[in-house]
Amino acid sequence: MTNQKQSAPDAQAAIEEELIQTVVDSFATCTDDRLKELMQSLTKHLHAFIRDVRLTEDEWNGAIEFLTEAGHITDDKRQEFILLSDVFGASMQTINVNNEVHDNATEATVFGPFFVDDAPQIEIGGDISGGAQGQACWVEGTVKDTEGNPLPGARIEVWEADEEGFYDVQHSDGRVYGRAHLFSDENGKYNFWGLTPTPYPIPHDGPVGRLLESVGRSPMRASHLHFMVSAERQRTLVTHIFVTGDELLTHDSVFGVKQSLIKDFVQQPAGTPTPDGRDLADASWARAEFDIVLPPAAV
Amino acid sequence: MTNQKQSAPDAQAAIEEELIQTVVDSFATCTDDRLKELMQSLTKHLHAFIRDVRLTEDEWNGAIEFLTEAGHITDDKRQEFILLSDVFGASMQTINVNNEVHDNATEATVFGPFFVDDAPQIEIGGDISGGAQGQACWVEGTVKDTEGNPLPGARIEVWEADEEGFYDVQHSDGRVYGRAHLFSDENGKYNFWGLTPTPYPIPHDGPVGRLLESVGRSPMRASHLHFMVSAERQRTLVTHIFVTGDELLTHDSVFGVKQSLIKDFVQQPAGTPTPDGRDLADASWARAEFDIVLPPAAV
Repeated sequence: MTNQKQSAPDAQAAIEEELIQTVVDSFATCTDDRLKELMQSLTKHLHAFIRDVRLTEDEWNGAIEFLTEAGHITDDKRQEFILLSDVFGASMQTINVNNEVHDNATEATVFGPFFVDDAPQIEIGGDISGGAQGQACWVEGTVKDTEGNPLPGARIEVWEADEEGFYDVQHSDGRVYGRAHLFSDENGKYNFWGLTPTPYPIPHDGPVGRLLESVGRSPMRASHLHFMVSAERQRTLVTHIFVTGDELLTHDSVFGVKQSLIKDFVQQPAGTPTPDGRDLADASWARAEFDIVLPPAAV
Repeated sequence: MTNQKQSAPDAQAAIEEELIQTVVDSFATCTDDRLKELMQSLTKHLHAFIRDVRLTEDEWNGAIEFLTEAGHITDDKRQEFILLSDVFGASMQTINVNNEVHDNATEATVFGPFFVDDAPQIEIGGDISGGAQGQACWVEGTVKDTEGNPLPGARIEVWEADEEGFYDVQHSDGRVYGRAHLFSDENGKYNFWGLTPTPYPIPHDGPVGRLLESVGRSPMRASHLHFMVSAERQRTLVTHIFVTGDELLTHDSVFGVKQSLIKDFVQQPAGTPTPDGRDLADASWARAEFDIVLPPAAV
């Protein structure tokens, strides 16, 4: 109405753009420059989404209800907002931007909610399975820097689910299995017995599970074994290894798969001699290799 | 590593862009076209935000904690996610895209959380204040269509806070004040007694309030009186009128102010005769005019 010559679409666009500018300006006096940058960028992207899809009031109400439900199902043991971030690939993208490509450094992937700080220590060649059910699997490799120098004494945290797809912390009785830490030897080498990874779903009995169902997506994660590897003066690596041939590799529900992290878990028929002479009686087993390259810290 | 000739920044961008495409593609089989559009657009804008600001893992954790707190403070009476949408102007932008400019139609603004469905009916000239404290205020106007034809029998819902800044529903004792509905007369005219609007803060004892504080923004809303006006074959209007001279007009915490909605609330010294002969004893009062233009439905 202030400019009668403006067409209705132009006038509408002007109103929408003026609002964005007003909201951006409302953060101008923020004295924390990084917080200001975050708030102003979030404003621009959020408004761009609303304008691009011409979000209806019903859809806005639906979004408020979804977030409310996610908040109410979230407690000390269940984190629906992390699941939400995961299934939109936002967790994985955050990992990407914080672990930029550096020479031949091993790629990172999502941390997940199942790490615990005080996992038992094992010696090289020890067993992380803690009595959990699953096929025994020998995992071995070397930890190096990007110039190929071995990294002795690197701390290697490993954790995984049992063959039913549950981590120990998903039980409420305090049992500990499928997790340990060990240190690489003087040549940077490590090896341990674990379980051949098997697939499992992310928790899908809440709003995120219903969202996946409504768009026709599976809650299943590709089979994987978690690693966190740290060494002095190197960037800490959080990653998984995945299993060649797993049909879920192309549609992991949290988008954690990277080509370089898919490893052959080579099946060994029952009776095949084990690397350390362990007697597995009449059970088959598997073996996998994973060489780990850590970039320098603060790159 | 698959392409040794790619520079590190190019390789990094390729990884980030490939992830976005993978997430977008994950929604491709969604059979609800609108839901697919929403999910794919949200994915693109969310990832663009993470990449633009190079979101750190600490910041991502902070966002998860913020949403968790917002979820836990939200209940039947308190809606922190709506407040969050409000203070980023997302609520107001949603109103904008659903109430596009149409000729001289009155502009819309935010609905707010304080409307109730079954407010008392009053006759034209009646009083909506229900005994609440505040300066008496005469409000009058005409409801018309965009061609200037009066709209008789238009339903006019009005609601407002008392002079302490509280709506009736913010008390837990079921009291009713500061709200009513009435109908325009055969010439489209209406008038009623209410209270001169006064400023108040949005609830700011939760995570959204702390966010506002950390960026140096006020939780105060500019003084306003709510309207919802509906008539047969017209688009329903949800709006406020604001008060000329209110110093909060330029920094309303939810960005609801539009120039065309700012009205003169003309102060009347004690003893000034009232339009309907009502005796206000030795109290001053105010009067405001608000002509309302409704566009046709489904434009």
